[in-house]
Amino acid sequence: MDVSIIGASGYAGGELLRILLQHPGVRVKQVTSRRFAGQRVSHVHPNLRSFPPLDFCSPDDLAPSDFLFVSLPNGESMSLMSRCLSLAPKIVDLGADFRLKTPDLWRSWYGSEHAAPELLKQSVTGLPELFGEEIRGAKLVAGPGCEAVATILGLYPPARRGLVRPSPVVVDAKMGSSQAGSAASPSSHHPERAGAVRTYRAAGHRHAAEIEQLLGPFLPGLRADITATAVEMVRGVLATIHVYLAGPLTEKEVWAAYRQDYEGRPFVRVVKQASGLYRMPEPKILQGTNFCELGFALDPRSPRLVIVSALDNLVKGTAGNAVQCMNLMCGFPETAGLSFPGLHPV
Amino acid sequence: MDVSIIGASGYAGGELLRILLQHPGVRVKQVTSRRFAGQRVSHVHPNLRSFPPLDFCSPDDLAPSDFLFVSLPNGESMSLMSRCLSLAPKIVDLGADFRLKTPDLWRSWYGSEHAAPELLKQSVTGLPELFGEEIRGAKLVAGPGCEAVATILGLYPPARRGLVRPSPVVVDAKMGSSQAGSAASPSSHHPERAGAVRTYRAAGHRHAAEIEQLLGPFLPGLRADITATAVEMVRGVLATIHVYLAGPLTEKEVWAAYRQDYEGRPFVRVVKQASGLYRMPEPKILQGTNFCELGFALDPRSPRLVIVSALDNLVKGTAGNAVQCMNLMCGFPETAGLSFPGLHPV
Amino acid sequence: MDVSIIGASGYAGGELLRILLQHPGVRVKQVTSRRFAGQRVSHVHPNLRSFPPLDFCSPDDLAPSDFLFVSLPNGESMSLMSRCLSLAPKIVDLGADFRLKTPDLWRSWYGSEHAAPELLKQSVTGLPELFGEEIRGAKLVAGPGCEAVATILGLYPPARRGLVRPSPVVVDAKMGSSQAGSAASPSSHHPERAGAVRTYRAAGHRHAAEIEQLLGPFLPGLRADITATAVEMVRGVLATIHVYLAGPLTEKEVWAAYRQDYEGRPFVRVVKQASGLYRMPEPKILQGTNFCELGFALDPRSPRLVIVSALDNLVKGTAGNAVQCMNLMCGFPETAGLSFPGLHPV
Amino acid sequence: MDVSIIGASGYAGGELLRILLQHPGVRVKQVTSRRFAGQRVSHVHPNLRSFPPLDFCSPDDLAPSDFLFVSLPNGESMSLMSRCLSLAPKIVDLGADFRLKTPDLWRSWYGSEHAAPELLKQSVTGLPELFGEEIRGAKLVAGPGCEAVATILGLYPPARRGLVRPSPVVVDAKMGSSQAGSAASPSSHHPERAGAVRTYRAAGHRHAAEIEQLLGPFLPGLRADITATAVEMVRGVLATIHVYLAGPLTEKEVWAAYRQDYEGRPFVRVVKQASGLYRMPEPKILQGTNFCELGFALDPRSPRLVIVSALDNLVKGTAGNAVQCMNLMCGFPETAGLSFPGLHPV
Repeated sequence: MDVSIIGASGYAGGELLRILLQHPGVRVKQVTSRRFAGQRVSHVHPNLRSFPPLDFCSPDDLAPSDFLFVSLPNGESMSLMSRCLSLAPKIVDLGADFRLKTPDLWRSWYGSEHAAPELLKQSVTGLPELFGEEIRGAKLVAGPGCEAVATILGLYPPARRGLVRPSPVVVDAKMGSSQAGSAASPSSHHPERAGAVRTYRAAGHRHAAEIEQLLGPFLPGLRADITATAVEMVRGVLATIHVYLAGPLTEKEVWAAYRQDYEGRPFVRVVKQASGLYRMPEPKILQGTNFCELGFALDPRSPRLVIVSALDNLVKGTAGNAVQCMNLMCGFPETAGLSFPGLHPV
Repeated sequence: MDVSIIGASGYAGGELLRILLQHPGVRVKQVTSRRFAGQRVSHVHPNLRSFPPLDFCSPDDLAPSDFLFVSLPNGESMSLMSRCLSLAPKIVDLGADFRLKTPDLWRSWYGSEHAAPELLKQSVTGLPELFGEEIRGAKLVAGPGCEAVATILGLYPPARRGLVRPSPVVVDAKMGSSQAGSAASPSSHHPERAGAVRTYRAAGHRHAAEIEQLLGPFLPGLRADITATAVEMVRGVLATIHVYLAGPLTEKEVWAAYRQDYEGRPFVRVVKQASGLYRMPEPKILQGTNFCELGFALDPRSPRLVIVSALDNLVKGTAGNAVQCMNLMCGFPETAGLSFPGLHPV
Repeated sequence: MDVSIIGASGYAGGELLRILLQHPGVRVKQVTSRRFAGQRVSHVHPNLRSFPPLDFCSPDDLAPSDFLFVSLPNGESMSLMSRCLSLAPKIVDLGADFRLKTPDLWRSWYGSEHAAPELLKQSVTGLPELFGEEIRGAKLVAGPGCEAVATILGLYPPARRGLVRPSPVVVDAKMGSSQAGSAASPSSHHPERAGAVRTYRAAGHRHAAEIEQLLGPFLPGLRADITATAVEMVRGVLATIHVYLAGPLTEKEVWAAYRQDYEGRPFVRVVKQASGLYRMPEPKILQGTNFCELGFALDPRSPRLVIVSALDNLVKGTAGNAVQCMNLMCGFPETAGLSFPGLHPV
Repeated sequence: MDVSIIGASGYAGGELLRILLQHPGVRVKQVTSRRFAGQRVSHVHPNLRSFPPLDFCSPDDLAPSDFLFVSLPNGESMSLMSRCLSLAPKIVDLGADFRLKTPDLWRSWYGSEHAAPELLKQSVTGLPELFGEEIRGAKLVAGPGCEAVATILGLYPPARRGLVRPSPVVVDAKMGSSQAGSAASPSSHHPERAGAVRTYRAAGHRHAAEIEQLLGPFLPGLRADITATAVEMVRGVLATIHVYLAGPLTEKEVWAAYRQDYEGRPFVRVVKQASGLYRMPEPKILQGTNFCELGFALDPRSPRLVIVSALDNLVKGTAGNAVQCMNLMCGFPETAGLSFPGLHPV
């Protein structure tokens, strides 16, 4: 199967390439970059040096293929999507453009008119753990934001059972630097960013809209109060989800809920060791993997459930999750190309 | 004035030494360490190489002095305190033993009987911004824990005015590695700790007791739901305090509350730049300083106030704060010895 | 093919496991750890959670297998090796015990008598790029030290052609923290080790003996003047090899030497981009991979050739290199199990 | 005494400000920045928030003062220097323009014509440990580059006694990210720079010219073979200087040479503990200080002396060293304003 990538010079695009170049069922056909057209991909992504040479092409030269990934800055893919759909029968969009299901929601969170409202309805949320069936039959899949993936997977089991209250739900997200993308900026300048613990979005995080859209039907009135803090790591999200109980709850019941929902799901690991350094989820050891690790603790003094969700923002948070969707859409094994187990120590 | 330090080989003890060796009004008389007795302090604290040679002595050899700092592991100072009080007229204890004001509270949070319940009543909370007057007249001062300092200073202005609800109050604390002390352990082993974002206390953090004890009188029913996460830095606490409003509130009102409470307080900086990288508090640039930086944001979608409080856990969180107390107790200028402004970049 | 690992709880043992559990031709039979016998391997190596459960067993319970890896602290395998050879027909030892080819050399560098001098002669140096043929037929292979691998691969092309002088050869090695092993110690305590640039072996590094033993025949009188400095990374070696020319030399000639020696070698990448961030080798992007990247520069002012060699100390420097040897010894494709390309950014 | 700074928005300018704002003998009069004119200095240097408000002014508005620091990118100060000399009787230039003593040297290393060759002769090298007398009487002082300071202080005692050979002298310099300045660039982008060990100047480092110019008279034929590698730290230089002996030498003799040359020099610390983590110099604990730490080891196998020199590139490598020069030029105590001892841990 021939696969192309629109926007392959960014970090998510590079991860798509790393995964697809090792995928047993696909052949990478074209990878576009307006800026780097004509250059080797390994010039931008040096880890790809070990693969056969491949050059970026201009997006204008894109030819038809069997599958297309679109990895562009927010707001760019919606005006290209009709053309994309004429070039490939199945598409996963990694950006934000098709995540919110109504033009009104888009406008209120992104401040612009949506350029392809008719396609919004067709698009399917690219979260295989919740929407596997829809994804299998989809033509256009929109991968969720990385904090949304972490939060939704963590909150889903107690939320859909009504075990917790719809508000307040405090999501305190710790983020690595790759999440801000591959373009240098004053805030990413190493002397300023190294060792930082920096509140970069105290309130109003856009991924709240995705969380509320997807889990709101289970928890009417759900309000995700996200604060995002940049910490010293390159890859990773740790979402600490502080949520309050709707009624009495034992650890065993919570444990059962998670196990029931994620039993057999290859990329969700419910972690709850009694001891050891890694008894709670950690992004550190998930770098490069498609796993989302979930853990939790009940607060003995307060009706609070602390859910901890960790993933690699560039893999399960973006590119790996997108390939997982492609696997479902195209009939590959769900884990094809996604078997890297992660490193320790790292 | 002659000052001695019991327990000077740990990180807090080293910071006490660094500050006191440059303090214009004191002479360091003795510094004890059972383990390093007879050795140079600069062997343990290499930054002290530039000062005249000084050796650790055994705690058994401690002579009377004008002032005593006690910097021992939790649970050790309570049985020594009567002897200490016979050796010095004024004492600051940097550990936990005299922070909680009743033996019952101690027992319920630390799981042991308090060895000096009669001294508990005498002890004064060493937080100059709230208890300056009491500290001035005190004989025995107990410095609060570092997360407690950060949280209390951040929460005090809205709490004492009843602007916020007593629960839920979610304190999501990000901590540097020095907070775990100077003893090596598997969890501090560099390959495991580097780049970690590790939930090390999901619930039940002991500093909650201090916060509730001090701010509870203003906010009856206050419950501090702390989760502490270790992040990649050596020094620093960033407490993100998610709190819910008791009624409508404007940013201007919050701002006024902070300004009123901390106007003229030399070590509290209310930070609220409109732009720039450092428009919210950050522990990074506070390393080595006695400042606590406070910032906040009102959530436009939710009746939530996000308070962000940053400090260096070894300075304003421990040793610097203790010297600030000493300054008040002994009639020195409050800022004596504490003028280091911090570094940028760092 | 059944494979067992003696000493699987350390970092090299964990990497062996990660690689072997994904190797298409082997089945992991037993993994020993005296300390963790009876416990899950994923308790110690949390990245292995995604594999089927596997427990450590006691080394006393080791059964025969088709292949054995020995990953023990220096000085421990030599007294066990006869027993090991009775348990498996082919062995790779990852430690130092069989690296030096005479008992005298061992004594002079490690300060003890060698317990199995007769086996020393049989053992083959586990560096496939130089000794592929010998390794194919070997029964006992000794993997070189990680700085030795980096230095030998970097120095080999100019050394064997006599392009450089045998001394001085300055090897300035920058090392990550995992090289010191998995046991916590004061020097690995995060507050002391984080951000360190620490000279931990100014002279007398034992890997010099390996370098001189292997390259000395090409460059009589070769003396490797190694200084090793710990820097802030978990995995990685960057060896900067400063070597002086025996006669005039052009960049093209150096380039040709490297290309000729490593053409077709799957794990050596000669890097020499004209521009870009990664135009010289870097351990950062090699984490988890079995690649050794080599680059060089001729000093226009001085008859100096600066060779830069980078690898992951736990993979090409130890465990991955050992599996590469096993592949040769057992007739697997040389790259089997070793295809991870590395991450970017990371 | 009124002091102004031309170019105060960069990192060196910020450090000058930090130091001068606490200096007992000076008043900061004007600080210029073309880009930030009219803005608060604390907007750019957030650690200066605790000082009275101060704004950047345009360099066009610079008024006369008693002392002037010039901290501009290389090549900019030479054309401004006559005007500067009309505005202040004494000047320290922190940039490269007046470091090399002939126009030919400038041209050959910087590739342009020098705009003020007549001032080159007047300028004095700003290294108080070697040129204290000249600096005291100087009008124009040029601070050396940070690797040059580290290397020259380390090499001076053995070089001036002819204990070592003039070549090869291999300087393997490990550098922090602040050395590249305060402007963001692709190479400083956090995801690419974090954890890097990156050879950024294999050969041809310009500071070689300074080293050879200053130490060449002692060691005719001296050639400094510098390779510079960026490592993960913000501040700091560790220069590992590999040098070869001219004849037999004992550790005691080396030790004596260093002690004799630096006895009583307040900012040079010869470090040679027998044990402990910090038995060799380390930039980590020197952050913010004006110290240069020196250590060494004799290689028992090779006539090699390994000299290790550490400093903070922004303090003893630039701004602190410049203030030390000012102190000499203006009759202040040499250590005025420079007493910060550094932090541990950090």
